[in-house]
Amino acid sequence: MNHQESLTAYIAAFVGELVLSGITDVVVSPGSRSTPMALVMAEHPDLNVHIHVDERSAAFFALGIAKATNRTVAILCTSGTAAANYFPAIVEARYSRVPVLVLTADRPHELREVGAPQAIDQIHLYGKHVKWFAEMALPEKNDEMIRYARTVCSRAASYAASAPAGPVHLNFPFREPLIPKMDEELFAVSERPEGYVQVHNGELNINEMEYQEIAERLAGKAKGIIVCGNVADERFAIAVTKLANQLKYPILADPLSQLRSGQHANDQIIDTYDTFLRNEDAKSYLKPDVIIRIGSMPVSKALTIFIKGNPNADQFVVDGGGGWRDPAILSTDMIFCNEAIFCEKLSAYSKPRVETGYLDAWKKVNDLTKVNMSPIRDIPELSEGKLFYQLAEMLPDGAALFVGNSMPIRDLDSFFLTNGKSIKIMANRGANGIDGTVSTALGAAMYSKPLYLVLGDLTFFHDLNGLWAAMKHQININIILINNNGGGIFSFLPQSEHPKHFELLFGTPLNIEFEHAVKMFNGQFTRIKDWDHFQIEMEKTRDAAGINVYEIVTNRDKNRDEHREFWHVVSQEISNFVKGEQK
Amino acid sequence: MNHQESLTAYIAAFVGELVLSGITDVVVSPGSRSTPMALVMAEHPDLNVHIHVDERSAAFFALGIAKATNRTVAILCTSGTAAANYFPAIVEARYSRVPVLVLTADRPHELREVGAPQAIDQIHLYGKHVKWFAEMALPEKNDEMIRYARTVCSRAASYAASAPAGPVHLNFPFREPLIPKMDEELFAVSERPEGYVQVHNGELNINEMEYQEIAERLAGKAKGIIVCGNVADERFAIAVTKLANQLKYPILADPLSQLRSGQHANDQIIDTYDTFLRNEDAKSYLKPDVIIRIGSMPVSKALTIFIKGNPNADQFVVDGGGGWRDPAILSTDMIFCNEAIFCEKLSAYSKPRVETGYLDAWKKVNDLTKVNMSPIRDIPELSEGKLFYQLAEMLPDGAALFVGNSMPIRDLDSFFLTNGKSIKIMANRGANGIDGTVSTALGAAMYSKPLYLVLGDLTFFHDLNGLWAAMKHQININIILINNNGGGIFSFLPQSEHPKHFELLFGTPLNIEFEHAVKMFNGQFTRIKDWDHFQIEMEKTRDAAGINVYEIVTNRDKNRDEHREFWHVVSQEISNFVKGEQK
Repeated sequence: MNHQESLTAYIAAFVGELVLSGITDVVVSPGSRSTPMALVMAEHPDLNVHIHVDERSAAFFALGIAKATNRTVAILCTSGTAAANYFPAIVEARYSRVPVLVLTADRPHELREVGAPQAIDQIHLYGKHVKWFAEMALPEKNDEMIRYARTVCSRAASYAASAPAGPVHLNFPFREPLIPKMDEELFAVSERPEGYVQVHNGELNINEMEYQEIAERLAGKAKGIIVCGNVADERFAIAVTKLANQLKYPILADPLSQLRSGQHANDQIIDTYDTFLRNEDAKSYLKPDVIIRIGSMPVSKALTIFIKGNPNADQFVVDGGGGWRDPAILSTDMIFCNEAIFCEKLSAYSKPRVETGYLDAWKKVNDLTKVNMSPIRDIPELSEGKLFYQLAEMLPDGAALFVGNSMPIRDLDSFFLTNGKSIKIMANRGANGIDGTVSTALGAAMYSKPLYLVLGDLTFFHDLNGLWAAMKHQININIILINNNGGGIFSFLPQSEHPKHFELLFGTPLNIEFEHAVKMFNGQFTRIKDWDHFQIEMEKTRDAAGINVYEIVTNRDKNRDEHREFWHVVSQEISNFVKGEQK
Repeated sequence: MNHQESLTAYIAAFVGELVLSGITDVVVSPGSRSTPMALVMAEHPDLNVHIHVDERSAAFFALGIAKATNRTVAILCTSGTAAANYFPAIVEARYSRVPVLVLTADRPHELREVGAPQAIDQIHLYGKHVKWFAEMALPEKNDEMIRYARTVCSRAASYAASAPAGPVHLNFPFREPLIPKMDEELFAVSERPEGYVQVHNGELNINEMEYQEIAERLAGKAKGIIVCGNVADERFAIAVTKLANQLKYPILADPLSQLRSGQHANDQIIDTYDTFLRNEDAKSYLKPDVIIRIGSMPVSKALTIFIKGNPNADQFVVDGGGGWRDPAILSTDMIFCNEAIFCEKLSAYSKPRVETGYLDAWKKVNDLTKVNMSPIRDIPELSEGKLFYQLAEMLPDGAALFVGNSMPIRDLDSFFLTNGKSIKIMANRGANGIDGTVSTALGAAMYSKPLYLVLGDLTFFHDLNGLWAAMKHQININIILINNNGGGIFSFLPQSEHPKHFELLFGTPLNIEFEHAVKMFNGQFTRIKDWDHFQIEMEKTRDAAGINVYEIVTNRDKNRDEHREFWHVVSQEISNFVKGEQK
């Protein structure tokens, strides 16, 4: 059996199985050692091959596609530091539970750790941050090794997608010559054309007795809340709103829960808690006996403090991926169970509760907060808070909104409220980094259209290279760039009270004219002059193509003062209300 | 003892010891969790704190400072994916043996793997790619823990610098509040102000008997060559040229050996081997019985093939870092010994050999190659080979030349010849990646002045963010950007014979107008029109400040043809010469 035939048959079997495993997109970075895999992938009629030169951006781009499609996405690069550049996105994929299949090409064993060029130790390169690592066998063509290649592929794709979804890494040693034999029969399979082995991925579920017990415990506790973070399961929104209705518990809906928009019942959705839970009167007025937390940790620090402030409440944490999301160390019940199934089954076991006033209290405080929030609309100057407040109105129905970390996700949480539109909200909230945001958004924009990205200047700068994909792959994206020339979040932290090294270490003004950056990638750059201008530009985005960047220049100090003033005013109104109710 | 006092004392002890351990430069990326360390560092009068927003670039920037100064450089970032962005530079530092002390801030233990924001598992984050990892204790202030902080610092700095130099990682858990108490007594030490523990770092050496044996073996073999790659030891150039003179062996000097320029004897330096060792007649004419290889693997593939073609020669590999640099698996003697000491001692044990004709044969072929290379000077169009040929003439004495990977380092190897100037040549040849090149060069440019960076368009693009440091820290750099709009090296590889997916997967044209990128960072961009223009611009660089980018536009196919034609012509002349000599 000659080398080229073995190489070709083995890789074609692997790539063929990739497609049969449901993978439709691969992001490939150029390189020599990965040549055989790249060429065979490019030849497969059912694979979309996306090229990306910078591997750091490439991996985040893949993450974005996976977020938008809920499908595993593969990434491929050559040996050496190329593979190390994948690391930030892999870590993010792990903690945000996004399925990514990492394929790295490597030197064969005889060229490792002997000074050969572009050879680094790639065994367990990403350590504990991948769900599974396998060092692949050298390519061989015989029934057993073809079966091996196909089976490992199917297994890896299914591991990546099973709860908790995440990255899986396969490392491929390839010997030279690296050119496969490209003939028409590349993907013809002699047996099992429907896929080599089908994986039946079970879901975690607790038993009937346990549901019954939990239902009984909750039956005695009318003061309960449900806190929802991100849950990827599409059945979840209907299931949790039904449960909430049975129990008459308010749902505190993090923006990433996707519960603030959409077709499910929204009359028990609480969306301004980040504002009113800063108020001590509200916190004691709304004190719960039960907290049911589902999905990723919420963004709101006010909510986290509120949860911490109720150590005697029963705290249920439901996690279909078997994680342990409990930074306050206050959970009484850790429930490893699929989130949608849990809500459905618990609904079935629970008797519908009659409204007791507790849910009503939450709704009233929420409504009051909204009323007091509305003057934000009248702020004449460009303002970060107002931006998010208005976005819900301005975005077209069906749009996707990708939000940068640090301040934008927090402002979104505070100011982007429940609305009748169906707007999918995305962010990189696994590790909350500012890296890779542009690329993740662009990957998502391949499949979620139209897509709006809102981010700060440091975040935009960190992944500027990511924009190249938009130019290369003709992706349409609307980017709202909040430029406060530095790290705005630090103005809210204790560091800001120590001016001596503040601007050097934390403010870090970039002093970049981003117009040049946008031009470099053939994008359109518009500096927003005022709200009227913004409104006009946002209306135009409905027909916009390519990269469109709208820069909103703000001031860090003024932004902080504006936020504090807003919270101060609302807080007073809430205190007045609560004291009135308690009389 | 209150929290703030403990935090302050512990970190001040650590930072004070950093300075006492000889560290003068730290590269800090903004973040919240790293606040206490960053503030104390900024306060130390003897530390240069360099801010860099993008951690990937920051780590490479540190690598560049370490390369230029031969001192360990520290890097500091916050928790989360920030730390993952360091990974490419850490891998490069490991394989290129550059001392870097990696300091990452982390959440304290109770906030790990529980869904807390910006918390990832940072224990052994970089796996086997650091020489040592330590999870630091929480800050405490008592004699023992202060001694602990100072000792770990001293130990880590010394591990990083000892052969083989490389990265060391310390992970610091910090609890809130994160603000240290900044008073004037911060670095006052009650005991051992000269440093806590002084590390006496031994060097590897073999015993006298072994030297004698090797000298005797070499005495019988007149046909020997010495192959030199990069060796960081400053004593090495004098030592190896002396040994070569004793043995009458030619030195095949890789550009990174620093032997092509400088004050040492250069009459036995062979610098055109990459060209003439492509010729079969030369290879058999110059066949050695002994090969002594010292330092990193040479760049030249022709040389590697030549070494592989002499499996029966005695092959000595000398490595002061105890590595195993032998991709051909042909070494007969692996010598773990400091390279400079080995050359000095072996010189002392060797009798001076009388010239036998073998050394002369190498010199003649080398000279002939140079004569036949000189017409390259007359190429009228902008050409990649000619660029490097002329650079040796154009660069000012004392300049530093940083070269990108892929084609530039290879062209440098082929065309940048021995010269009377003192020009320090640098490149990232640990893992040979195209990533981080701009940043590494900028870090080096802080201390090696004037610095010229020559790199291709993909490499420039990959680390575009790195340029921000030049603007921020007002670094002067001259960048010669070879823009062939894509991956030029692939035109030389077998992939280029398969046109179907070639441009998609390998050519990867970027189609970027780099003028915009350079303007973004307030740099000067000049597109070179012709050689006269280039000459004038290069003369101006002697007084240039800031970022100056000179773009040389070339064509990938034409470049390949030009190289092949050149090698073809030279090869014929060499064959004629060798046949004449052998008559």
